[in-house]
Amino acid sequence: MYGAGDVRIETVPDAHLIESTDALVVVTRASICGSDLWPYNQMEPSETGQRMGHEFIGVVEAVGDDVRTVKPGDVVVAPFAWSDGTCVFCQAGLQTSCLHGGFWARDGIDGGQGEAVRVPQADGTLVVLPVGEDDALMPSLLTLSDVMGTGHHAALAAKVGAGKTVAVVGDGAVGLCGVIAARRLGSERIIILGRHPDRIALAKDFGATDVVSERGGEAVERVRELTDGFGAHSVLECVGHGQSTITALSVVRPGGAVGRVGLPQQEAIPTTLTTFFDNVTIGGGPAPARAYIEELLPDVLDGRIEPGRVFDRVGSLDEVPDGYRAMNERESIKFLVKF
Amino acid sequence: MYGAGDVRIETVPDAHLIESTDALVVVTRASICGSDLWPYNQMEPSETGQRMGHEFIGVVEAVGDDVRTVKPGDVVVAPFAWSDGTCVFCQAGLQTSCLHGGFWARDGIDGGQGEAVRVPQADGTLVVLPVGEDDALMPSLLTLSDVMGTGHHAALAAKVGAGKTVAVVGDGAVGLCGVIAARRLGSERIIILGRHPDRIALAKDFGATDVVSERGGEAVERVRELTDGFGAHSVLECVGHGQSTITALSVVRPGGAVGRVGLPQQEAIPTTLTTFFDNVTIGGGPAPARAYIEELLPDVLDGRIEPGRVFDRVGSLDEVPDGYRAMNERESIKFLVKF
Repeated sequence: MYGAGDVRIETVPDAHLIESTDALVVVTRASICGSDLWPYNQMEPSETGQRMGHEFIGVVEAVGDDVRTVKPGDVVVAPFAWSDGTCVFCQAGLQTSCLHGGFWARDGIDGGQGEAVRVPQADGTLVVLPVGEDDALMPSLLTLSDVMGTGHHAALAAKVGAGKTVAVVGDGAVGLCGVIAARRLGSERIIILGRHPDRIALAKDFGATDVVSERGGEAVERVRELTDGFGAHSVLECVGHGQSTITALSVVRPGGAVGRVGLPQQEAIPTTLTTFFDNVTIGGGPAPARAYIEELLPDVLDGRIEPGRVFDRVGSLDEVPDGYRAMNERESIKFLVKF
Repeated sequence: MYGAGDVRIETVPDAHLIESTDALVVVTRASICGSDLWPYNQMEPSETGQRMGHEFIGVVEAVGDDVRTVKPGDVVVAPFAWSDGTCVFCQAGLQTSCLHGGFWARDGIDGGQGEAVRVPQADGTLVVLPVGEDDALMPSLLTLSDVMGTGHHAALAAKVGAGKTVAVVGDGAVGLCGVIAARRLGSERIIILGRHPDRIALAKDFGATDVVSERGGEAVERVRELTDGFGAHSVLECVGHGQSTITALSVVRPGGAVGRVGLPQQEAIPTTLTTFFDNVTIGGGPAPARAYIEELLPDVLDGRIEPGRVFDRVGSLDEVPDGYRAMNERESIKFLVKF
């Protein structure tokens, strides 16, 4: 990406092993993330551009001498942060804070929207998938790299559980995966706040029981009507805008929790004193997707959850610039790159 | 209180039963809360004044026809919010959000810093104490009305547990009770941020293992030095100032939690994006002290915790104005009114 709206497919030097803990992965599937749209809208023009992409599946081509858990030929999924798997934060299941980890497509690390990636800390980062590289489950498996783990993280941070009413703010791919996660964690009442008919239809398929298409104060009022005036126990903030955060904080009931996973577009959480007096908990952040892959993988393999349905467009690498455009114009929910 | 710094002892009409769910309680012990110092510093002059006090123990003098759980002669403690004990929030243990409850010393309800109080919703509000009205444990029992429950609430909201490092921001009575709560919940490493020698000495008696007397950025640096550079797992914000909240958010480690119980003096939580990227959870609010009395009472009765030691001054009702002054000037930690 060379600036807002300027996505180019270019030939770059081949990725290759550098550290003994690296793996070289030939990418077979990748995708565009909602968070990729922030630079797509705001990035200053750049002479050098920056790599893009942090969601990918591929086949291991080579591994460094110290790599133990993956080998050439393995089909692997990479979470959106790479991590050593051994530090105090990885051990605690918070791989996004790994002491020796980092993120794709920055600091000299390859991006996932490309043909091959050098994966640092391969043992800590990659998870081998027990399927062939063209398995029909690829779209759902690919969501384990980020969006499904992110929805799951929002649900955990919002303390979703059986018998609780959940509100999901945002009908993008993350919000839709949040619906899946809420249903999976036992919630039977799931209110989605969104207004795009195709996304709402998918949300209902995923388990949403109520739809609130109003915005702002009207949306808040509507959620309260649906919840005996109290609001939802658990609210998943899946957008990151100041307004969506205010909405999330306004539809949570006393003693409830807001799990925020939308990349915040402002520093301070726009709380009011009500947040305090109502004992509302605010949690969340970037999902430690790596921590959730083992937990979610069986459900994907067994078809109990189908997060891959958030991909409504598939294209080749050459079509990625148009994928950005389509997602940005809300023409597409999420774009899958098939190599 | 008639305005900032203007506390008067006056004769008012006798409290008496109004509703069938009321109890009339003759107050035997009361106290001044740190939160009483906010109006003591900021209240606009008022012609009518306002009642004060929300922490008290007393003897039941009379009960309404529908009261079942307390009877005349019972020694009872009242939490700082009154509540029906039956609504959806009370059942969930969040009595501060009771649908039919409220707070002392406002909306026509008596204050605890007075000789007698009409207690609404007596069955839901009061807890009978199995001791005589002049028991030596009275100071510690009185803390169950607010300050000990508030410290406990901060610790729960900050997810204190065995093996975790805890930082307590503030060495007032709440912070000191936060130290007790953290120790009680299994934490062995407790860092208190404060600088008053008498309070620090008490904090150490209560279980604090480290003291940080610096302020602002230096305090943050010092806590990081004490925690391998990571910060504390659990941070108890026991002040409510913007600066103390910033400090609390700055000394929590990735994946950690801040429990805030200091009455916020500003609306928005002064978070930064780091709060998000570090997956920091923010919880807390007014403590449902009523919910914690049963849990904490046995430890008080057995002497396992001694929160009553936060009272370093005892006086009669006539001395209450000077008690406010002394607490406000940090000459006293907390003032106990003995009737």
